[in-house]
Amino acid sequence: MSTGSVGIVETRYLDLPGPLPLDSGRTLSGVRVAYETYGTLSPEKDNVILVCHALSGDAHAAGIGAESALDGFGAAASPKGIGWWDGMIGPGKAFDTDRFFVISTNLLGGCRGTTGPSSIDPETGFPYGSDFPVITVADMVRCERAFLDELGIDRLAAVAGGSLGGMQALQWAVSYPGQVDTIVVIASTHALHPQGLAWNAIARESIMRDPDWQGGHYYGTGRAPDAGMGVARMVGHITYLSAPALETKFGRRLQGREDVGYTIGEAEFEVESYLRHQAESFVKRFDANTYLYTSRALTYFDLGREHGSLEQALEKIRARTLLIAFSSDWLYPPVASRQIADQLEKSGKSVEIHIIDAPYGHDCFLLEEARQTPIVRKFLDESRT
Amino acid sequence: MSTGSVGIVETRYLDLPGPLPLDSGRTLSGVRVAYETYGTLSPEKDNVILVCHALSGDAHAAGIGAESALDGFGAAASPKGIGWWDGMIGPGKAFDTDRFFVISTNLLGGCRGTTGPSSIDPETGFPYGSDFPVITVADMVRCERAFLDELGIDRLAAVAGGSLGGMQALQWAVSYPGQVDTIVVIASTHALHPQGLAWNAIARESIMRDPDWQGGHYYGTGRAPDAGMGVARMVGHITYLSAPALETKFGRRLQGREDVGYTIGEAEFEVESYLRHQAESFVKRFDANTYLYTSRALTYFDLGREHGSLEQALEKIRARTLLIAFSSDWLYPPVASRQIADQLEKSGKSVEIHIIDAPYGHDCFLLEEARQTPIVRKFLDESRT
Repeated sequence: MSTGSVGIVETRYLDLPGPLPLDSGRTLSGVRVAYETYGTLSPEKDNVILVCHALSGDAHAAGIGAESALDGFGAAASPKGIGWWDGMIGPGKAFDTDRFFVISTNLLGGCRGTTGPSSIDPETGFPYGSDFPVITVADMVRCERAFLDELGIDRLAAVAGGSLGGMQALQWAVSYPGQVDTIVVIASTHALHPQGLAWNAIARESIMRDPDWQGGHYYGTGRAPDAGMGVARMVGHITYLSAPALETKFGRRLQGREDVGYTIGEAEFEVESYLRHQAESFVKRFDANTYLYTSRALTYFDLGREHGSLEQALEKIRARTLLIAFSSDWLYPPVASRQIADQLEKSGKSVEIHIIDAPYGHDCFLLEEARQTPIVRKFLDESRT
Repeated sequence: MSTGSVGIVETRYLDLPGPLPLDSGRTLSGVRVAYETYGTLSPEKDNVILVCHALSGDAHAAGIGAESALDGFGAAASPKGIGWWDGMIGPGKAFDTDRFFVISTNLLGGCRGTTGPSSIDPETGFPYGSDFPVITVADMVRCERAFLDELGIDRLAAVAGGSLGGMQALQWAVSYPGQVDTIVVIASTHALHPQGLAWNAIARESIMRDPDWQGGHYYGTGRAPDAGMGVARMVGHITYLSAPALETKFGRRLQGREDVGYTIGEAEFEVESYLRHQAESFVKRFDANTYLYTSRALTYFDLGREHGSLEQALEKIRARTLLIAFSSDWLYPPVASRQIADQLEKSGKSVEIHIIDAPYGHDCFLLEEARQTPIVRKFLDESRT
């Protein structure tokens, strides 16, 4: 079976008409949502798949990005770049645009077109900065729900995502059980384990300890906490990969030298150079405050705490559930997906789980497309019959 | 069998008479070494054990520290505190001071009394800062050898240490094969794996990106890279513990609150609060440049690279070797100790290896004293007969 690309796509923007209530008790007015769509909406509007992105993603999930106007944080949505889940979305792919109408939005609090800390606060005329309200995964989903209302879409054939995107899919099934047919939850969890909390705390500390963060009000000052966010990104990168993957990829090879150079400041090993490069390119395209808010939201996420117990949370779900996890993922280890599956089964819900044996760690959800595709296609097929 | 304390001990200082040659080709003059001793030197001087500390340790390995004069970095050597390996050193303990004369030194490049970046450069009259020469584990061992020469000690009954201390023990056996009877290498490796290189690189980046680092010349400016070193220490702490240990110790418990507080800046989870506390207390007692230099040395350490191959390096060893590793240690995983043991066996050397099943990660070498003690005692007994 041949697969294709959705071609050139442009990120569009929609302004929510009403204020958005938040878990914190605050509300956000004038919320704008950046989004892309792929495929064709059926006349019955019953073929919609919402895909949700992870911490550093955006609305540009598939195809080739058209040159778009600068927006929000000032970064074009990956101009001319390939979407972050292009291997999974398109004609004949896992999320098959010959059959489904796939919608991808930038999440609430984002910096790629959807309202976030770098957006202008309508009440002050200045960017929110750290006055932006703290948001939760449930708030992100509430925003997605309000956005779909504007498109006249009541029901979703599927909500799908990896990592933080998978948390959103779970939250959808819990928050709006009557409106979601299936969820596809990849490399995710119902609650991050304490080591994951720690990595996120370290990343946030690194940003907030950078004097250029300026208490969160750095916009327009000509300075941004690039140094701190660079370190945060380095930490992230190592947690997304497995130790064996690093061994295969870099080993202890020196970077362009025969012997160690007896320097403190230079990157001497390949893995050191790689980390610096990752940090440098990330700070060019991402807003530090969005990193803080999104990281906070994903550490808060805890279906058990929010609903009394995991059992009570999952009891609400009516969607058929597909869980995929990866053997080498130590940030979102398979055990959490297994817990969800066991609990859903115990409650008599329809659930399917696949633990894929693959070496790349958490990044597998973006890399192991070929092995996820048949699983996802078959799962979605069964829902359509 | 009852065990005791070595009592109150004072850190002493010795100045090396000659310059110390370094792997980098540079030399260091006027090197001072901080040290402590426990037990009694035999008339034959044949009962000496040298213990080597890890990244953040010092000469105060056992007993209760006497109030000592400020030195070096300006930090008293843990005044009145208990030594970092007190559970292992003392009458009736693993390193039995009823039989052995145990010596502990602060390593070269340190900030606890031995010459390091915070020491005064005799040529300029100012602290070295980042003009301090880059040092290696072999340099640390060369310094220890020169120091023992001054004490008139030719032979060591044992060299022992965990982590970076274990690297020094291995290096002793390779550099001075005729002068070491046994080595005790705990939770260590012949070469850090790439993920370990990465964690160390991240820690160093975090310090060097702190503007208060000032290119390494922050002494006397009233500012030090505490923010960056705090993040470095947080990273370190998480890599020293295992994920299950964090689960047991903290879970996802909130810090003194019933519900999340919707804040970005506050520590809301217990594990977040713990990390901040660890960072705060560490920056009070440790010098950031020493962190950089020591971290660099332990990433350089690679017996295979330095000697053509691991086989060729270990071929030099004549000491009996005891290796101890811990099942949950993912920073210095047991596989490295196993590689060393296999290679030594293949070369017909005397080697003993124990993988202890324990849940606390790399920190086990400081925590699992009760289980290490009989192994070490038996090993040292066999050497004495």
